[in-house]
Amino acid sequence: MTSDGPEGRAPRRRGRPSRAEKSTGPDARSRILAAARAEFAGRGYDKTSIRGIAKEAGVDAALVHHYFGTKDEMFAAAVEVSFEPALVIPEILGGPAEDMGERLARYFIGVWENPATRAPLVAILRSALTHEAAAKVLRGFVLRRLLERIAADLDVPDPTFRAELAASHMIGIAILRYVIQAEPLASADPEKIIAMVAPTLQRYLTEKDVPEARPL
Amino acid sequence: MTSDGPEGRAPRRRGRPSRAEKSTGPDARSRILAAARAEFAGRGYDKTSIRGIAKEAGVDAALVHHYFGTKDEMFAAAVEVSFEPALVIPEILGGPAEDMGERLARYFIGVWENPATRAPLVAILRSALTHEAAAKVLRGFVLRRLLERIAADLDVPDPTFRAELAASHMIGIAILRYVIQAEPLASADPEKIIAMVAPTLQRYLTEKDVPEARPL
Repeated sequence: MTSDGPEGRAPRRRGRPSRAEKSTGPDARSRILAAARAEFAGRGYDKTSIRGIAKEAGVDAALVHHYFGTKDEMFAAAVEVSFEPALVIPEILGGPAEDMGERLARYFIGVWENPATRAPLVAILRSALTHEAAAKVLRGFVLRRLLERIAADLDVPDPTFRAELAASHMIGIAILRYVIQAEPLASADPEKIIAMVAPTLQRYLTEKDVPEARPL
Repeated sequence: MTSDGPEGRAPRRRGRPSRAEKSTGPDARSRILAAARAEFAGRGYDKTSIRGIAKEAGVDAALVHHYFGTKDEMFAAAVEVSFEPALVIPEILGGPAEDMGERLARYFIGVWENPATRAPLVAILRSALTHEAAAKVLRGFVLRRLLERIAADLDVPDPTFRAELAASHMIGIAILRYVIQAEPLASADPEKIIAMVAPTLQRYLTEKDVPEARPL
């Protein structure tokens, strides 16, 4: 952090317009957030710094601290923006119960098929798998809140556990199909995946009775 | 690589016995493999070098190249050893069809509950998610061969696709429970997870008819 306060001069960088550089309002805040997403996605959690984010956004590092706090808090804010598509999930679950699983599978595959929404999610997964600080942010600030919000709409026992099981399947598919790109899943028709996965999600999210596992 | 050939002198390191150090037979080979697993698991794909593996094994780097080839080939060999527990899966699938899903879920959770078998798998996942060379090894040498072997025992359409869907669910559970440690899955009773997941695996691996997904 420099000795400049949040209102200190922001040095000109990368030819960004000086009006914008000097802004400390919502415009600067959203520019910092966009820079943070790009930095975390491009460099990973480890190599991203508040200083680097500030440079990208064309502001002083103190302003980044002023708006977002520590690097972990900055990461949490960037992750939350990337999870914005997930905020419509409770709405998706709110429709007719009989095809809840299919709606969710279709929505999830759609988010991952779109490179613009896929890239930040891949970056978050990578960071969370390799850095405990990033994992902590994911499980604390984001995943838990999201799962609890989804669970609130479910009429099954252990709804948060059920929601997380559904999430685990979708995360596993995303990893094998889009990150590791293992065949045949990587080239499979999205409709074929949705057809197979929808009944699984449907069972997790709507079926009250689950058979007891018998020890072998 | 040094100018010493495979038979060149191996410097003494870390107090290993000099007889073993000079060995170039199966003993040296298995010591290199153990060192490679430890190095890849501890440092990750990126920071592991043939030189570092040689040092850990107390042999010359040329001997590592002699037995295992390039770094990628060394990684593939280390991954294959870590996947040895998976080699019994076709045997597991060969039992009575009606509880195939439960046997597989129980076996998989058992492998991941055991820290000794979990650690190298976590290391492989981390490497594959962050380095394309490691991902290539995983999808090519290991995953594809393993999935095809499992698929050969299944009596369903698209057996490799079905096997990979089952694998995706188990990998997703492993990531959320053991790596990111997201609650409530992280603390859930293994029997509870097996009870929920077994019918899903059973369906993927044994049910011939799958409903067509209807576009919304």
